[in-house]
Amino acid sequence: MLVVQKYGGTSVGSLERITNVAGKVIKYKDEGNDLVVVVSAMSGETDRLLKLASGVAKFPDEREVDVLISTGEQVTSAVLAMALKERGYDAVSMLGSQIRIKTDSAFGSARIEEIEKDKILEALKAGQVVVVPGFQGIDYGGNITTLGRGGSDTTAVAVAAALHADLCEIYTDVDGVYTTDPNITDKARKLDRISYEEMLEMASLGAKVLQIRSVELARKYNVPLLVKSSFVDGEGTLVCEEAPMMEQVVISGVTYSKNEAKITVSEVPDKPGTATHLFTPLADAHIVVDMIVQNVSHKGLTDMTFTTAKADAKKAFKIMEQVAAEVGAKQVIIDEDIAKVSIVGSGMRSHSGIATKMFTILSNEGINIEMISTSEIKISCVIKEKYGELAVRALHTGFGLDAEDVSEER
Amino acid sequence: MLVVQKYGGTSVGSLERITNVAGKVIKYKDEGNDLVVVVSAMSGETDRLLKLASGVAKFPDEREVDVLISTGEQVTSAVLAMALKERGYDAVSMLGSQIRIKTDSAFGSARIEEIEKDKILEALKAGQVVVVPGFQGIDYGGNITTLGRGGSDTTAVAVAAALHADLCEIYTDVDGVYTTDPNITDKARKLDRISYEEMLEMASLGAKVLQIRSVELARKYNVPLLVKSSFVDGEGTLVCEEAPMMEQVVISGVTYSKNEAKITVSEVPDKPGTATHLFTPLADAHIVVDMIVQNVSHKGLTDMTFTTAKADAKKAFKIMEQVAAEVGAKQVIIDEDIAKVSIVGSGMRSHSGIATKMFTILSNEGINIEMISTSEIKISCVIKEKYGELAVRALHTGFGLDAEDVSEER
Repeated sequence: MLVVQKYGGTSVGSLERITNVAGKVIKYKDEGNDLVVVVSAMSGETDRLLKLASGVAKFPDEREVDVLISTGEQVTSAVLAMALKERGYDAVSMLGSQIRIKTDSAFGSARIEEIEKDKILEALKAGQVVVVPGFQGIDYGGNITTLGRGGSDTTAVAVAAALHADLCEIYTDVDGVYTTDPNITDKARKLDRISYEEMLEMASLGAKVLQIRSVELARKYNVPLLVKSSFVDGEGTLVCEEAPMMEQVVISGVTYSKNEAKITVSEVPDKPGTATHLFTPLADAHIVVDMIVQNVSHKGLTDMTFTTAKADAKKAFKIMEQVAAEVGAKQVIIDEDIAKVSIVGSGMRSHSGIATKMFTILSNEGINIEMISTSEIKISCVIKEKYGELAVRALHTGFGLDAEDVSEER
Repeated sequence: MLVVQKYGGTSVGSLERITNVAGKVIKYKDEGNDLVVVVSAMSGETDRLLKLASGVAKFPDEREVDVLISTGEQVTSAVLAMALKERGYDAVSMLGSQIRIKTDSAFGSARIEEIEKDKILEALKAGQVVVVPGFQGIDYGGNITTLGRGGSDTTAVAVAAALHADLCEIYTDVDGVYTTDPNITDKARKLDRISYEEMLEMASLGAKVLQIRSVELARKYNVPLLVKSSFVDGEGTLVCEEAPMMEQVVISGVTYSKNEAKITVSEVPDKPGTATHLFTPLADAHIVVDMIVQNVSHKGLTDMTFTTAKADAKKAFKIMEQVAAEVGAKQVIIDEDIAKVSIVGSGMRSHSGIATKMFTILSNEGINIEMISTSEIKISCVIKEKYGELAVRALHTGFGLDAEDVSEER
C-alpha cells in the first residue's frame, strides 16, 4: 500500500516526539507499505521565525516571509530523515523546490498547481521513505511560496493525489472527528466515517481538525483521509466519499461558533440593486459575509441582516452606516452577542422534517431563533450567545448523537 | 562599482545588528554602487541546529545535516532583505538553489564549481540589492550542500569572481589583518595591504581572519578582498596581488601556533621507501602532518621528526609505535609542549639573510630552535611552548613591525 502520512506541529514538537514519529513510520514500513511523510514545523517554530520578521519590519515583505518561515518545515524534514537513517531505514528529505511543488505566486497563501512525482516515485522504488516538508512550494519563477497556516494538510493531500496513494493519514492532537465539541458535552461521540461534504461543513463551522482546503482537494481527487491521534492509538475517523450505508445516519454532527456578529440594516428601500449597493463596499474592504437574510418587504421597505467575523464587525458596521445613509435606510444595528449552531448531515437530502425538528428542539429549551440559513446538508440558526452550549447539547441529544455509554466509549 | 559584501555570524548576531547591516548596505547603495550581500547564519544558530541533529542521531546523515543547517543562512538572508525593503530599498534574497551555486557532492565540505550569474545580474540591473545566504550550494543532483565552517567567505569570493565584481568586502569582528596577534604584543600593527600569498601563509598559521579557501579562490580569480570590522569604522586591510611597492616591506607578519605536537622516530634505518612506510599509515588515518624534518644519516640510521595537530597527536603516536617496530626504528618520542613561530613576507624572495636574522633574534633571547622549515615566503621554527609569546614579541620588534606610537595608532 502507498500511504502518505502527515504529522502536525505538536506531533513533531520536540526531538523526543520526532523520534516517536520515526517509530510509527518504521512500523508502517515494516508492514510492507511505501511511505511519504509530510511534516509541519516543530510547534512554536513558525511563530519564532515570524517574530524575527516583525523585529526588523513593520510590514515584512511577503516573498521574504515565505523564504523565512519555510525553513521551519525544512528543519523538521531533515531531522526526521536523520532519525530514520539512524535506525537503519533509508530515508531522504525532499523540499518543495526539489519535488517541484508548483504553486501560484500568492506568497503566504499560495495554491498548489502541480507536483512532479517522478523523483518521489524513484525514491520509493529504491525503498526510501520520502520526507516532505509541508506548507511550502515554489512558483513558476522559482521563488519559495507557502500555503498559509495549516498548509501541511494540503501538501499531504496534494502529494497523495499526485501519487494516487491508497490512503492519506493525518496525524494530529485529536483522535478523530467528533459529533460535536467534546468541551461542550461529554456525550460527544467520535465518528468512524464522515463524507467529504459533511467534513467541509463541519470544518468551516469550527471543527478545526482539518484545513478546509485539504478536504476540498481530497474530495476533488477522491483521496481517502484518515484523521488519527499521534499520541493515542485508535482507529481515527475516515473522511471519504459518501457511501450508501452512510445515509442511514441523518445527522453527523452539531457545530457551534461564537466568532460572528450580526448586523442589521433596517427599513431599506426595497428596489433592484439595493443588495448590490449594500454588499459591494464590504467586498471591496475584503470583509467576508457569512449568512444573509432578507425579510419580506413591507410598504416598499425591507430589513437586511447578515453575519460576519467578529474581528471585522466594527469595520463592517461603519461601512454600513455610510451605505445606509446613501440608500436611505433607517438605521444600522450591530449585535455581537450571538452564536451560530448548525446541524450537518448528508441524510438531510433524503429526509424531510429535519429543520422542523431542529426548531422544535430549540424552542423546547426556550431558545429564540434570530436567523436561519440552510444548505443542502446543513441547517444553521443564529441564537443569543448565552444559549450556545445549551443548544448544542439539546440538538446532540435530540438527534440521537449521544454516546450510549460514555465511560466505555472514551 | 559592483561590490560584494559579506557579513559574518557576529555581524548579524541579533535583529539590532541586522538592522545595522541594512544601514551599511544602504549607505553603499546610496553612493551609487551595485550590491550583492552574502550573509552567515546568526551567531549560535548553526550550533543550535546541529544540536537538533545530535538529539536524534549519533551519526547524523550528512546529506540531511546540510538540509538542516543551510536553513540558518536562509533565515538571515530573508530577514536582511525584509529590513532593506522596510526602509524603502528594493532587495531580494536568492538561495544557493536559486542562483544555482553548483558544488560537488561532498556534503559538509563541498566545493563550488560554478555559479549562474544571470539571475543576479538581472536583479542588479533592476536596482535590487541581492542578498545571498552564504555557506550553501546544490550539487548536480539538486541536493543541498554546505561548504564547511567559514564557507560564507568562500561564497562571497565565488560570487564576486563570477560577477567580476570590483571589490569583495569581508565584514567581521576584527578591523583588519595584523602583523601579529594583538593579544601577544600591544605593538601589533594593522596592515593596510597584504598579498594573497602572504595572507595564505598567515591564515594557515593561525591568523583566523579569513577562511583559507576563500583567499585561494580570491587569488585564483584576482578578486580584491577588503577585510573590515562590522562594528568600528576604519579602512581595513586590502588583500590583493603583490604590487612592486610591497617588496619594500620584507616581513609582513609574525604568526604563532600552540596547537601542534612534535613526534620523533629515532634511529630509523635510512633506506629508500622508509618515509613512505612511515607516513602512509598516518595518511590512511586522515592525520594531517605539517612540518617534516629528517636529519642527516649516521651509520645508516636517521631521525625523522614531524608535527601534527595536538588533537591527533596521541593517535599518531600509537600508529608510529607500531610502524617503528615494523621498520626497526629505536623509539618514538612525543612532545606536546611546543610552539611554532613563523615570519611571513613576500620580501624574502629578494632579500637574503632573513633566516639568519630570525635565528639570531631567537638565540639572543636564549630560545632554542628545535625544528626549522622554510618556504618561499615563510620561515617557521618550532620552539618550547613556554617561549612562544616571547619569541613573537622579539621577532615583531626585530623585524621592525612595531607600531611607532601605540596610543595614537589604536
